[in-house]
Amino acid sequence: METPEQDAAHMARAVELAGHGHGSTSPNPLVGCVVLDAAGQVAGEGFHAYAGGPHAEVAALARAGERARGGTAYVTLEPCDHTGRTGPCSRALLDAGVARVVIAVTDPNPKAAGGAARLRAHGVSVTSGVLAGAAERGNEEWLTYARLGRSHVTWKFAATLDGRSAAEDGTSQWITSPEARADVHRMRAAADAIVAGIGTVLADDPGLTARVRDGSGRTPLRVVIDTEGHTPQHARVLDDKAPTLVAVAEDARTPLKADLLRLPRHEGGLDLGALLRELAAREVVGVFLEGGPTLAGSFVRQGLADRVLAYVAPALLGSGRAALGAAGVGTIDDVHRLTFDDFSLIGPDLRLIARPAHPSSREQ
Amino acid sequence: METPEQDAAHMARAVELAGHGHGSTSPNPLVGCVVLDAAGQVAGEGFHAYAGGPHAEVAALARAGERARGGTAYVTLEPCDHTGRTGPCSRALLDAGVARVVIAVTDPNPKAAGGAARLRAHGVSVTSGVLAGAAERGNEEWLTYARLGRSHVTWKFAATLDGRSAAEDGTSQWITSPEARADVHRMRAAADAIVAGIGTVLADDPGLTARVRDGSGRTPLRVVIDTEGHTPQHARVLDDKAPTLVAVAEDARTPLKADLLRLPRHEGGLDLGALLRELAAREVVGVFLEGGPTLAGSFVRQGLADRVLAYVAPALLGSGRAALGAAGVGTIDDVHRLTFDDFSLIGPDLRLIARPAHPSSREQ
Ligand SMILES: NC(=O)c1ccc[n+]([C@@H]2O[C@H](COP(=O)([O-])OP(=O)(O)OC[C@H]3O[C@@H](n4cnc5c(N)ncnc54)[C@H](OP(=O)(O)O)[C@@H]3O)[C@@H](O)[C@H]2O)c1
Ligand SMILES: NC(=O)c1ccc[n+]([C@@H]2O[C@H](COP(=O)([O-])OP(=O)(O)OC[C@H]3O[C@@H](n4cnc5c(N)ncnc54)[C@H](OP(=O)(O)O)[C@@H]3O)[C@@H](O)[C@H]2O)c1
Repeated sequence: METPEQDAAHMARAVELAGHGHGSTSPNPLVGCVVLDAAGQVAGEGFHAYAGGPHAEVAALARAGERARGGTAYVTLEPCDHTGRTGPCSRALLDAGVARVVIAVTDPNPKAAGGAARLRAHGVSVTSGVLAGAAERGNEEWLTYARLGRSHVTWKFAATLDGRSAAEDGTSQWITSPEARADVHRMRAAADAIVAGIGTVLADDPGLTARVRDGSGRTPLRVVIDTEGHTPQHARVLDDKAPTLVAVAEDARTPLKADLLRLPRHEGGLDLGALLRELAAREVVGVFLEGGPTLAGSFVRQGLADRVLAYVAPALLGSGRAALGAAGVGTIDDVHRLTFDDFSLIGPDLRLIARPAHPSSREQ
Repeated sequence: METPEQDAAHMARAVELAGHGHGSTSPNPLVGCVVLDAAGQVAGEGFHAYAGGPHAEVAALARAGERARGGTAYVTLEPCDHTGRTGPCSRALLDAGVARVVIAVTDPNPKAAGGAARLRAHGVSVTSGVLAGAAERGNEEWLTYARLGRSHVTWKFAATLDGRSAAEDGTSQWITSPEARADVHRMRAAADAIVAGIGTVLADDPGLTARVRDGSGRTPLRVVIDTEGHTPQHARVLDDKAPTLVAVAEDARTPLKADLLRLPRHEGGLDLGALLRELAAREVVGVFLEGGPTLAGSFVRQGLADRVLAYVAPALLGSGRAALGAAGVGTIDDVHRLTFDDFSLIGPDLRLIARPAHPSSREQ
């Protein structure tokens, strides 16, 4: 049997493989798999590349062929046990004669779970929880979606070092660099939906399309949060470059000709929890929230901003529009605590990734 | 003769040595020196440790002894040519029989400059500008002081990722971590003066002392910017833990018993340029500006914030006091552009160092 160090090294590779599917597997998870032969040599690698395509285990087993017999499979997510668009992976692993399966994260999806149990019942040695943290991180969007039954939200903002997104007169072009803006387009393209508030649509008339495509031909859905249905009929967000949903109140009286998503009202606006559940029902795993500050404040207040993606420009404004609007904090004890997970320079700007210190989706 | 690569490597070491004097050489510069023997081997190293102590060249030559003859000296700053508390370093290098002197930055101080010329006049080969950027950076406070005749200003602030320094109700303890606060004390202790506005003194009654001493027994001067002399007589900043200057308007009528620094009025407050020239005249090389936001806004607006030291907590407030007050920017074209020079995690917080993209002190 492999040592814990070997287990960690092979699982790290599986997590890396899983990442290759980033942006194209929705509504499926990112999964990577490494298969060793009985002698402990790598016999096959695979990842889930797109929904409907082969699962990671099947891809890796196909490469390994007969060498898988008596070997070990490393999978970032518990192998599925149900027959979806492809057969159950637990079955495929048994058929290949794998002797041991190492799993990073247990499948929270009741339809798919049970793979580990079935493998054990057939005499396969199963180890769970190896490199679970890294695998969770790599698959956070899908895990939030699967565990909470709602879309995962990445809130993106661009601001100066003093937290401002526009000058006093409303001008904001360009606070961040071309490099940072190109990075935003890459991040957008990996999302299933791009969400903006009606304030932003009325102020900026953004196209909300991802100019950098990932080659998969996917076009993120555009969603406008527009309680009363005030989106102008000629708004760019309603053009034919991508599908668009306009979320309005159940009782909104609007002449708008567009796909409407009717939602309950909540605290003067729309119910954002209901929004994310409705989007999940439409197989939107990851949402890219572009603002504005008012809408972002509501997401943060309600604990619905799962990841913060901040582009901080080396610049100072001292006045003008704040990056984040009211988020329900009256006193310092109620501050929304995050942790920084990543920071790097993108051109002259700093890109920060932060997550809630006490996320709602983490398993307890 | 040494190759350019060897020159760069030895000068890098000299810059590193210079840094050992950080926080204890005022009003003198940081200087480091490496002396090679005629065969190119390191014969002696030295740095300027404290005002009144031996200059870097003298320290390095003392270590090198006779081995300096026919050798090369690397100095981060042009050797002085005047007899101050110690003799001129140009003389010492000539006496030691050094054949070549490599200089990073030319001395802007008219009293001290001329060292390179004297060395050349005596047949010493002199190379200037080697690793000038790194040496400038390491000595930026003193160079600003020497070139502009005013103190160098480091503006420090602590804020959330969305740029806020306090919640709506004014509470702010503790936005940043104990690690970040300890780092602030280290940075403070290396300054010659700590400056705060009367708003901060009235709101927080801060002690403005550096709790971490650097062992040299130096205590930074405390300076309150207080146009009308409203500092309460019992304010902690007036206790006996450190000397304090209260800067007031020339015509301020105040009953305050304290050391007053009378300054011209400027745009409704005090003339900050005059403040920094007065402080420089008192041999204050580096000022640590603690805020608040109103005062910091004035420094930024007038191009007097030479370095920004930001502690960014992984947290969101969405409302409450902004880290920076009005800084004279009405439209985006007037934004104060900086460059990020350094970023690192200090505990859970991010520490950023930024400098104006077009600093007033850089040589043209
Ligand atoms: N720098 C950046 O990264 C960035 C990104 C995007 C936007 N912006 C800027 O942000 C500005 C617009 O922002 P904004 O804050 O005015 O508007 P917004 O956040 O785009 O939209 C807010 C509106 O959304 C509607 N809404 C519905 N349900 C809501 C809920 N639960 N919570 C909050 N809002 C809800 C409300 O409209 P009703 O009143 O109709 O209910 C609300 O007024 C623009 O000037 C734009 O340039 C900056
Ligand atoms: N998070 C942090 O890092 C941090 C650090 C320090 C302070 N703070 C907070 O900041 C708050 C106080 O800040 P504040 O903005 O009210 O006051 P402030 O910046 O400390 O002081 C501003 C005052 O300084 C005087 N002043 C004189 N000349 C000036 C000039 N040229 N430009 C600007 N001001 C000049 C003015 O007083 P006159 O009106 O008498 O002329 C002005 O009102 C406190 O609540 C404190 O907690 C936070």
